Amino acid sequence: MYIPTFDDVKAAHARIMPYIHRTPVLTSSYFNSLAGAELFFKCENFQKASAFEVRGASNAVFGLDEKTAQKGVATHSSGNHALSLTYAAGCRGIPVTVVMPRTAPETKKAAVRGYGGTGVECEPSTSSREAVFAEVVAQSGADFVHPYNNHRVIAGQATCSKELIEDIGDLDAVVAPIGGGGMISGSCLTLSNIAQNTKIYAAEPVNADDACRSFKSGHIIADDAPETVADGLKVPLKELTWHFVSNHVEGILLATEQEIIDAMYLTWQRMKIVIEPSSAVPLATILKNKQLFVGKRVGVILTGGNGDLKNLPWMQKKH
Amino acid sequence: MYIPTFDDVKAAHARIMPYIHRTPVLTSSYFNSLAGAELFFKCENFQKASAFEVRGASNAVFGLDEKTAQKGVATHSSGNHALSLTYAAGCRGIPVTVVMPRTAPETKKAAVRGYGGTGVECEPSTSSREAVFAEVVAQSGADFVHPYNNHRVIAGQATCSKELIEDIGDLDAVVAPIGGGGMISGSCLTLSNIAQNTKIYAAEPVNADDACRSFKSGHIIADDAPETVADGLKVPLKELTWHFVSNHVEGILLATEQEIIDAMYLTWQRMKIVIEPSSAVPLATILKNKQLFVGKRVGVILTGGNGDLKNLPWMQKKH
Repeated sequence: MYIPTFDDVKAAHARIMPYIHRTPVLTSSYFNSLAGAELFFKCENFQKASAFEVRGASNAVFGLDEKTAQKGVATHSSGNHALSLTYAAGCRGIPVTVVMPRTAPETKKAAVRGYGGTGVECEPSTSSREAVFAEVVAQSGADFVHPYNNHRVIAGQATCSKELIEDIGDLDAVVAPIGGGGMISGSCLTLSNIAQNTKIYAAEPVNADDACRSFKSGHIIADDAPETVADGLKVPLKELTWHFVSNHVEGILLATEQEIIDAMYLTWQRMKIVIEPSSAVPLATILKNKQLFVGKRVGVILTGGNGDLKNLPWMQKKH
Repeated sequence: MYIPTFDDVKAAHARIMPYIHRTPVLTSSYFNSLAGAELFFKCENFQKASAFEVRGASNAVFGLDEKTAQKGVATHSSGNHALSLTYAAGCRGIPVTVVMPRTAPETKKAAVRGYGGTGVECEPSTSSREAVFAEVVAQSGADFVHPYNNHRVIAGQATCSKELIEDIGDLDAVVAPIGGGGMISGSCLTLSNIAQNTKIYAAEPVNADDACRSFKSGHIIADDAPETVADGLKVPLKELTWHFVSNHVEGILLATEQEIIDAMYLTWQRMKIVIEPSSAVPLATILKNKQLFVGKRVGVILTGGNGDLKNLPWMQKKH
């Protein structure tokens, strides 16, 4: 297992810069006063493909040598990583195949096609996904770009915290959502090198708290199909992300579904920006654990802005 | 009738700068490609009180001499102007009274109270509003700050286009929504002074096209209670705004309700920002009149971001 270094991050940043946005950092006097802290929101919802995952995907695609690249890339994911990989492959002009459950939202399938990717459907089970994916890779020789358990992907995600520190200066803490751990690992990689006094907190839904339980027990725990509105955060840690989480994370903070929805709503209402539920988990945990952050300068990673505008969580009766 | 000059705009800008945001200008490769033009979105949805009206209101409040100011300010409006005036009066620490129809949305009444204003309710008719308002002014001696037919307000709104040109440079055209004409008049005032080759287009809902008919007929036409989703644009032109519109506007472009809603939805979806329906009218008219803008550099004023996140127009069956 190759552990990426900060040199890899610098190389990644130079490599992907033409294909990504240097996203803005927004502040909100409302949220500062609510939290009693100075919050700096890194707006990856304004990123290409509307998600930070385009950083790692671009680094994975443009990090391949020419011969390997020509065989294309492939992944299995119906989320932001698939969209990001399709975008990056399109920038390089190489084929990309995405294996998606046939039950994935039509909007996500259409988005992959819209960026020029090939969608291949599988049944919504791990066994079907793996079988279909193996066939795709066997036939095409495509490079498998895992959504997060991949050193190029993590070095790419690490450019997000790099920009944040370069633009805002020292921070006492950074809070980012945790699902598979790609963004958190990237944050750990950067901050442990250039901002060693910055504490790194991961924010996770109570309903998908496998990373928190892993953190406490000292080994990876994976849940089968947890249910949360923060649908980007359902996946488990893997070896490479566990390395960063177990070595560099200060704590994993939890938020309930209602707290996540409330934080998301308040962000739209007060900051006038569209963020997806996963992006709201850090703010939810900050407002719930004010004592950790009061008086501090805190970076908050808003990871993405994809989601269905016609099906907003605060308009569903269930919550 | 005093016609404000560009010196008034410069004075206004210096006066209000501590109380407003210099809002960012965003671009979108998606919309550029859709329009075949280079669009620069001036994001007044990120303004204090989430609306450009805070510029004019702040200039009105801080332009008063101390003795007049102590008697407070008053207005009748249930919209962004009321909120903005309340915000500005709060910054100066003077009383503010807002006469609002008792049928105004509870969120708007609460927002005025939240900023420390006094709400006084009237019946939802012009006669009741005028009677109640006259009583408020008679009792308090408050200065009446009309939402747009006021030279200080227009000089304040004019700072928006001033920032746009300062930040982005020359533009071939600027498109802004037109209701009472405050923002358009401010744009005319600035651009006719510092960017005389920039054409100024007003964008109006078909359902509230009184400004368009006024423009064509050469005199003010006022409609009684037009119905449009762009609820900030229902009010008629007045003498002062008519002066600017009739002298400096190149054309008034119309958009249907569905076109406005589509442009609003697309802005949220693609730019990941929350704008109110009125803000979407310019984009709707640009996409409908591409021949006017193709290949051009076009400023688009996104006037505000207030609205009910629980009642979005694309989720209503009627449209």
